[in-house]
Amino acid sequence: MSKTIVFGHQNPDTDTITAAISLAHLIGAEPVALGATNEETQYALKEFGHAELPIIKNIAETGADSVWLVDHNEAQQSAADIKDFDVAGVVDHHRIANFETANPLFYRAEPVGCTNTIIHKLYVERGVEIPANIAGLMLSAIISDTLLFKSPTTTEEDIKAAHALAAIANVNIELYGLELLKAGTNLAAKTESELLNSDVKSFPMGDQTIRIGQVNTVSIPEVLDRKAALIAEMEKENAANGFDQFILIITDILESNSEAIVVGGDTSKIESAFNTPVNADVVVLPGVVSRKKQVVPQLTDAYNA
Amino acid sequence: MSKTIVFGHQNPDTDTITAAISLAHLIGAEPVALGATNEETQYALKEFGHAELPIIKNIAETGADSVWLVDHNEAQQSAADIKDFDVAGVVDHHRIANFETANPLFYRAEPVGCTNTIIHKLYVERGVEIPANIAGLMLSAIISDTLLFKSPTTTEEDIKAAHALAAIANVNIELYGLELLKAGTNLAAKTESELLNSDVKSFPMGDQTIRIGQVNTVSIPEVLDRKAALIAEMEKENAANGFDQFILIITDILESNSEAIVVGGDTSKIESAFNTPVNADVVVLPGVVSRKKQVVPQLTDAYNA
Repeated sequence: MSKTIVFGHQNPDTDTITAAISLAHLIGAEPVALGATNEETQYALKEFGHAELPIIKNIAETGADSVWLVDHNEAQQSAADIKDFDVAGVVDHHRIANFETANPLFYRAEPVGCTNTIIHKLYVERGVEIPANIAGLMLSAIISDTLLFKSPTTTEEDIKAAHALAAIANVNIELYGLELLKAGTNLAAKTESELLNSDVKSFPMGDQTIRIGQVNTVSIPEVLDRKAALIAEMEKENAANGFDQFILIITDILESNSEAIVVGGDTSKIESAFNTPVNADVVVLPGVVSRKKQVVPQLTDAYNA
Repeated sequence: MSKTIVFGHQNPDTDTITAAISLAHLIGAEPVALGATNEETQYALKEFGHAELPIIKNIAETGADSVWLVDHNEAQQSAADIKDFDVAGVVDHHRIANFETANPLFYRAEPVGCTNTIIHKLYVERGVEIPANIAGLMLSAIISDTLLFKSPTTTEEDIKAAHALAAIANVNIELYGLELLKAGTNLAAKTESELLNSDVKSFPMGDQTIRIGQVNTVSIPEVLDRKAALIAEMEKENAANGFDQFILIITDILESNSEAIVVGGDTSKIESAFNTPVNADVVVLPGVVSRKKQVVPQLTDAYNA
């Protein structure tokens, strides 16, 4: 008996979880997850009456003989034993790296803001009807990945797909979208370590390793109230893991602005990347919401200059 | 002024050349080639009144600022300076390996018999009309890659696309198809080096580099009459280029069988991949016509075992 599973990346976000659900429904597979959902995703699952996905530790334990990936392709972001399996299909919107197959496969990547925008196209191309609750989950992913279309990663195709999905799910995008994004900003209950690690990646820049985390909030000052404790934890992580610099981007999802706490390393790189001073370990980043488009390339340039 | 180029793999075959033409027409780009066309492709270009493509040595010389690949993705099959460019898009039907980008891209791969089958879908999805001569070239590619639907790589989608394209081009598939395939079997006039290099690719397997060429014929014995001279040339190429093993697949397009000459490396890998002995440098491969489906995966497994 053949069994196909679909999963997204480690430290799952709303797009990764809901893309597993929506693609699995389309191709007749089983959606699973590589970790626990965050509060934003929990809100979306509850709103549209979908159960949490089973969390797997590795592929082998599932007995699956066919594997599809969504919202990622790089092995270090995937299941621990991904290299033991030949991936049958991928739907993604990231760069391709550290990914290899032995056989021809289905691979669909487009440079859009959200994986579910591509999956929406697959449904349309194949003439398959999207159930209302899955449409609601797919819409949630687009809202989440584009910060309600405010992120510079947003494309016309994301906006078009979101409106089509909102019509199927019978949802007001603005009203629901703000509630969804706010559900992910309940930071008070989280420890400093949880805040730093909820959405964090390491980037090699020049000969340095730069750690960049991001949290969404409706009040940057509330997060900055915890600055001393955050800095202490960031120093600890730098020392323990050999990060040269730790940057925590705190993004106001209502105002589409960020401020960042910077710990360790050469702060002049930050100042030259963003053309603004670092004051008391904090840099103000007006209009910045996307780590991928508005922080990493600028900082990479500064470190390579 | 922005300039986008599209090209297929080195040692171009009919699919690689015509996919560059058909995709370039769809996306408004310039098709180029990484080498001279073979006789089969020349026959198709002449039949449908299309000029030969400009042959480029590297991407830099073209002044292009955007690069799309068709019918391949692996760097060693691509332009010499491909690693200096970030690929914007790929349309392919092969495995993914030795391919990496810094940025999100358009990637469309499907496990079908021919790149042009996928490009036909792109035209349909985007509602773009296919000019009759380009339809004829795309049909030629499907005939070539599927050996008139006899290769196990053939899918229902290839057959469907071929019939749609034949209707646009106003071509009888069987009659034209046999003429096209026969145009590629005129081996007597070719030197050993030309035979080896008309359709050849390098594959990293384990820590080895395996070179696999293929020729189509209507008489395998006629090709094997030249075995000694072919082996001498294969030894020369192995030594000059650091190939660990050279395999020349000789395929009878009428009987859908192959035999292969093997030079260098560990022949026990061949024997375990195909569960049959190598006798006097030749292995008999009944029913084998597809390098991609019936040779590369089996041999990759053997080298990774």
